[in-house]
Amino acid sequence: MTTENRTSTAGPTTVTAWAAPSAKAPLERTTVERRALRPTDVRIEIKYAGICHSDIHQARDGWSEGIFPMVPGHEIAGVVTETGPEVTRFAVGDRVGVGCMVDSCRTCDNCRAGLEQYCFRGNIQTYNDRDKNGDRTYGGYSTHIVVDEAFTLRIPDGLSLDVAAPLLCAGITLYSPLAHWGAGPGKKVAVVGLGGLGHMGVKIAHAMGAEVTVLSQSLRKKDDGLRLGADHYYATSDEATFEQLAGSLDLIVSTVSAPLPLDKYLSLLKTDGAFVNVGAPEEPVSLNLFSVIAGRKSLAGSGIGGIRETQEMLDFCAEHGLGAEIELIRADQINEAYERVLGSDVRYRFVIDAATI
Amino acid sequence: MTTENRTSTAGPTTVTAWAAPSAKAPLERTTVERRALRPTDVRIEIKYAGICHSDIHQARDGWSEGIFPMVPGHEIAGVVTETGPEVTRFAVGDRVGVGCMVDSCRTCDNCRAGLEQYCFRGNIQTYNDRDKNGDRTYGGYSTHIVVDEAFTLRIPDGLSLDVAAPLLCAGITLYSPLAHWGAGPGKKVAVVGLGGLGHMGVKIAHAMGAEVTVLSQSLRKKDDGLRLGADHYYATSDEATFEQLAGSLDLIVSTVSAPLPLDKYLSLLKTDGAFVNVGAPEEPVSLNLFSVIAGRKSLAGSGIGGIRETQEMLDFCAEHGLGAEIELIRADQINEAYERVLGSDVRYRFVIDAATI
Repeated sequence: MTTENRTSTAGPTTVTAWAAPSAKAPLERTTVERRALRPTDVRIEIKYAGICHSDIHQARDGWSEGIFPMVPGHEIAGVVTETGPEVTRFAVGDRVGVGCMVDSCRTCDNCRAGLEQYCFRGNIQTYNDRDKNGDRTYGGYSTHIVVDEAFTLRIPDGLSLDVAAPLLCAGITLYSPLAHWGAGPGKKVAVVGLGGLGHMGVKIAHAMGAEVTVLSQSLRKKDDGLRLGADHYYATSDEATFEQLAGSLDLIVSTVSAPLPLDKYLSLLKTDGAFVNVGAPEEPVSLNLFSVIAGRKSLAGSGIGGIRETQEMLDFCAEHGLGAEIELIRADQINEAYERVLGSDVRYRFVIDAATI
Repeated sequence: MTTENRTSTAGPTTVTAWAAPSAKAPLERTTVERRALRPTDVRIEIKYAGICHSDIHQARDGWSEGIFPMVPGHEIAGVVTETGPEVTRFAVGDRVGVGCMVDSCRTCDNCRAGLEQYCFRGNIQTYNDRDKNGDRTYGGYSTHIVVDEAFTLRIPDGLSLDVAAPLLCAGITLYSPLAHWGAGPGKKVAVVGLGGLGHMGVKIAHAMGAEVTVLSQSLRKKDDGLRLGADHYYATSDEATFEQLAGSLDLIVSTVSAPLPLDKYLSLLKTDGAFVNVGAPEEPVSLNLFSVIAGRKSLAGSGIGGIRETQEMLDFCAEHGLGAEIELIRADQINEAYERVLGSDVRYRFVIDAATI
């Protein structure tokens, strides 16, 4: 961990980061400015940053909304090194995390209900966004970040920071729908796709007490799936899967961004079951509405989770000893890691060792 | 009401009915056989039968599953004229109704939970189906029907039989999702389409205490909508409707069978809102899954309701003085009525006076 970039908090701080200089260009080492501490800010020395599939998407301007240069990273784990004068919840040395959001309006109904992810005015994303002052936000592929304590999470002692980092996006993205739709004892839950998101879904659903099924394209990762907590593992490339599991599941959480044959997946649900998308393709999907009418089913969606729920998730994961399965990399391996993520060649999350940034 | 066709209950009974002799042929007067009373059967003298859009669909073989000759009609109100020896819940003279189902397996989880409409083995439809013995079922465009008491509903004294008949399909089809998704005080509920189904949705949602909005193609029926209980009425042909109502509704129940631009309708929902289809087009619809991810929304469906819930609906309607808005017709006007339904020229339900059958 280099600290040479740290300067006085009287002004902005120049810190090292890895950034995409323009759409589709490889990421490279650079510096960015972190804002001077506001009264309720904490400065975090980043220890680990996970690589989320959406980092790649945004760095390559897949959603055409890229602000460049862009420092990706919204799965951040580190240690508090400085606190603003009005900070009450954190102290220097605290182990903390930052996820996908660093602010929201804090006044709308959703923000007041702890659903900042659905802030009416749109929350402020950890990177590739502008804060309330119009200043650029830069993500976790960096040595430090400055964040309001209201959007800073506490990482319980029981969780190592490296395996905790991916919980800040992958963990909460699965925990939130599993909790909201009642995964637990007596419930049959399927997770579609065993990648960075899906593997956390299996772990969390299992820890919640549900009977967990993985629905994956092939049986290639079956051993892993069972080891992570799945009770059953089926290949969706096998038509027999859809016959065998017809009408048997209470909840399906889909982590895949490929368009799925939704009518077939909906046929796997029991009456009142829900198919919840946390991944989604860019293009519209096709659906026969009789697939939801027959059995009062729901096709739903869910995006990350609120701050309160993210803390709840971290506490839950610590209590149950759940971290991500990670492959630790150096910062100079980010571009290679991106290619491997795109090729589904990661089990299950790349995490950047920030000491190499 | 003719009674000349009644014969001894020792054997089947020949009764007058109006039937479609073949797909797409006009309905004509004929006779069909009603089964001899089984121990738990009641014989019902039909007084009124509503004309549901799905009658037309099936009589014209829209779903290619027509069994001809077909006697449509699953919105039946009448009076018990005879009871089998083991009937315990009904007596001769009781005012009763029959809806879309006349039997189910009664043993699956859904049947045991009172969700016979989602019977694992498929419920037995009131017409255009075969019962457990393989015998044809014939619907309500007839002078009498024989039904197991378990699938017979009690029509409370406060409800006239003519306006009660459409409740057996249109009423329960709207009541069930409104109850299930919690329409009530403090909830903003929209009903899409002000037809036979929609007008009951407005009445019931209003009686439940919800703030009710009608979303109709035009403002043509606005006065009616407001009179029936709607608080607001918007034309979906006006783009401004979607801007004005963005993010404002808790629940939308769509009664239309035309394909809707679902992403636009989903944008009208609050966080955690549900868009519930009780009508649906034959063809698949298109949907961008981000429309449900943003705001944890649900695209759901619902089909009629269970027997227990149908009774609850009838009791609710009686308590609140809710019946359908009907146009009473003679049996020889059925074919003409079909054309008018297809042309949306009915406010809001045709009901056949069975005395003219």
